[in-house]
Amino acid sequence: MVVVGGDAGGMTAAAVARRRRSEAELEIVAFERTPHTSYSACGIPYLVGGVVTDPATLIARSPEVHRDRGLDVRTGHDVVGIDLDRREIAVVADGAQRREHFDSLLIATGAHPVRPRLPGIESRNVFGLQTLADGLAIRHVLDEEQPAHAVIVGGGYIGLEMAEALVARGVKVAVVEAVGQPMATLDPDMGALVADALRGIGVDLHLGVPVDGFESGTDGAVRAVRLGDASLPADLVVLGLGVRPASDLARDAGIDIGGSGGIVADTAMRTSAEGVWAAGDCVEVRHRVSGHTMAIALGTYANRQGRVAGITMTGGAAEFPGVIGTAIAKICAYEVARTGLHEEDARRAGFDPVSARIESTTRAAYFPGAQPMTVKAIADRRTGRLLGGQIVGKDGAAKRIDVMATGIWNDMTAEEFAMLDLSYAPPFGPVWDPVALAARKVADLVEQ
Amino acid sequence: MVVVGGDAGGMTAAAVARRRRSEAELEIVAFERTPHTSYSACGIPYLVGGVVTDPATLIARSPEVHRDRGLDVRTGHDVVGIDLDRREIAVVADGAQRREHFDSLLIATGAHPVRPRLPGIESRNVFGLQTLADGLAIRHVLDEEQPAHAVIVGGGYIGLEMAEALVARGVKVAVVEAVGQPMATLDPDMGALVADALRGIGVDLHLGVPVDGFESGTDGAVRAVRLGDASLPADLVVLGLGVRPASDLARDAGIDIGGSGGIVADTAMRTSAEGVWAAGDCVEVRHRVSGHTMAIALGTYANRQGRVAGITMTGGAAEFPGVIGTAIAKICAYEVARTGLHEEDARRAGFDPVSARIESTTRAAYFPGAQPMTVKAIADRRTGRLLGGQIVGKDGAAKRIDVMATGIWNDMTAEEFAMLDLSYAPPFGPVWDPVALAARKVADLVEQ
Repeated sequence: MVVVGGDAGGMTAAAVARRRRSEAELEIVAFERTPHTSYSACGIPYLVGGVVTDPATLIARSPEVHRDRGLDVRTGHDVVGIDLDRREIAVVADGAQRREHFDSLLIATGAHPVRPRLPGIESRNVFGLQTLADGLAIRHVLDEEQPAHAVIVGGGYIGLEMAEALVARGVKVAVVEAVGQPMATLDPDMGALVADALRGIGVDLHLGVPVDGFESGTDGAVRAVRLGDASLPADLVVLGLGVRPASDLARDAGIDIGGSGGIVADTAMRTSAEGVWAAGDCVEVRHRVSGHTMAIALGTYANRQGRVAGITMTGGAAEFPGVIGTAIAKICAYEVARTGLHEEDARRAGFDPVSARIESTTRAAYFPGAQPMTVKAIADRRTGRLLGGQIVGKDGAAKRIDVMATGIWNDMTAEEFAMLDLSYAPPFGPVWDPVALAARKVADLVEQ
Repeated sequence: MVVVGGDAGGMTAAAVARRRRSEAELEIVAFERTPHTSYSACGIPYLVGGVVTDPATLIARSPEVHRDRGLDVRTGHDVVGIDLDRREIAVVADGAQRREHFDSLLIATGAHPVRPRLPGIESRNVFGLQTLADGLAIRHVLDEEQPAHAVIVGGGYIGLEMAEALVARGVKVAVVEAVGQPMATLDPDMGALVADALRGIGVDLHLGVPVDGFESGTDGAVRAVRLGDASLPADLVVLGLGVRPASDLARDAGIDIGGSGGIVADTAMRTSAEGVWAAGDCVEVRHRVSGHTMAIALGTYANRQGRVAGITMTGGAAEFPGVIGTAIAKICAYEVARTGLHEEDARRAGFDPVSARIESTTRAAYFPGAQPMTVKAIADRRTGRLLGGQIVGKDGAAKRIDVMATGIWNDMTAEEFAMLDLSYAPPFGPVWDPVALAARKVADLVEQ
């Protein structure tokens, strides 16, 4: 069993396969280009912001730990080709190329950060945000060069987490987002709450404005970001424009790639090629509510897909059941989360959405420490089916999105969701939990 | 429309009915024995402990507020009889009995605290824990008599919340529980964690010991609690032995009462008598997993049943879909929650339970402020169906029970639950949320 890529998808599959098959039964070799395995990419903003100080804590399992568990992990090994007929991969290490045989192959090559071909993007101190190396490089610049101004390009989750991190480090931060709101996976009304929260922590927001390019000084370091006629001072730029599946290796081998650019895999994580599986950010996923396939890079999906591949590659039965786009982020005191379809998504998927937004609190209103939270619920006008949920609030608000996610996953109607047996005690919420209250309110808008 | 009982079940129904029918269309009269309506009984421990200082904050809607919204609320009115043939009730107020006509009747008489006939139980300073008056009386004793020792009889949720409250007030607290663990709705292994937590805050626990009686001094006030040969000093006793449905009024009228002692109602909250509905703690509920009917007094059920009754009594369609026994409590730094069936419940209901218990954290392990949490998941060995969940942990742990509750409600298998699309970011949990991890572990024990 050969695994290409030593992060969440690949190493989870390898570890699960090892638990099911002894070293005598199955040799497992994993090739990883970088020096690191199984690290928490989601932890990088916290490493930059100083919440986490030791980068080693972001590494769930080092290559040594994997080796101790019977996995032959080879870091610094770049897989550059797959020969399906010969059942071989081509690997470059230390400047030399070798071929390695496989019986079963897992492609877990992850994703590449989007890096638009804009003038000046190669300037020094313009960083992506994908690898541990990116995080360490940004932290190095903060420590050594004390940048006064940072610009984040892209107002998605990780961009905003980086904005918080840089604010925490005392840098003046601007966020530039091409669409008219931060977090485009929220509806505009909920995105506006996030925009208010960002401005509240001193972030300079530029919404609906595309970046035209980057200016650098004579030292080659970035010094400004150009937006049309305007220009923002920048000693540090972080590109948070998302990622695209790293599927070239699979494509070049003739394996099916979907419209999203991700590798096509069935629920057992099998690709179109016999004996070849795929897992993680390089794979496209099916959205259970819209039915559409898409590429969404999330560690939770990679871990679950890796588990499925580890089972099915060793003869077991398991299924990756698809996704519903659940996500969560913390930006200073604010918590933001979403799941399912937002209104525009819902229309595109052929639903007729109705929505309700409620204000509530994280504890009983009379209980000390109760924090405000806004919940939006979206349902289909005709069937009442709950389609999506969004939460913006403070301490203890956002994780409740998982309850909405579980309801949406199970095709519950808003009315059914409102009548769920959810827990209640004054330190944990009002007697109608905010998510149930939002569902109850949207249920009233459904056609009877 | 006549409503008997002015708390959660009754007043929710009245308010919902009023929103659906104008005062010109429907007269709504609610009779309440006490001076209070719509108060948070769950808030009483916090009133006693001083977390909440103003009792008025526990009253969600006063009689005046209800009256302003077009409801004729009559406090100090005790309904003592129902005459189904004449469509009348008998009401006592100011010492006089009158009869009042109804077209439709809602019985929302709540529950009575269990008060065993033990020697000395009528001593002064032996309190129940059901009404706002109970809470105010206990607070009065704390303020005026500075009791040194308090004994809580009963180790359920509200008893333990009262233990916390009294510890917070500087009283030495003992808890006496007839069964061998606190919180009998948890499995013994999880109950043991709660016992450890209670001992950690200085509570003297007496488990598996029944109370034999109470001793009082010459002033008539309690001074000790007798347990077999032993005796515990007590200046204050709180009875936390649970409640039983206040269904006598309905029984005397010839309305069907179930084996649990609660009024039998269908999913529209209709009783066996034409034109008579019931809602709240006086009604028995159906457990969706075991299929058994039982009496569980919870404000969330009362509110939901009241909403259903308010709709169905005004000609609309709504259903109360049953319960799965979700509950949560905070005891000092500890949070405890449960849902579904515990192992013994599961066996009694004809399942063959397997269980798994995991240790995890409320945030990514490397993230500052991560708190420990233990999650137990129970599944049926043959079908893999998730049957129950239990959580003991610290800040941010227990509310995740709602995710397990929503999964159990929807008949998910443990394997399906483990593959849910739950939210992840380092400030909110590990990449496998603790509830998903517990489900994944128990899924491995299910027959393939």
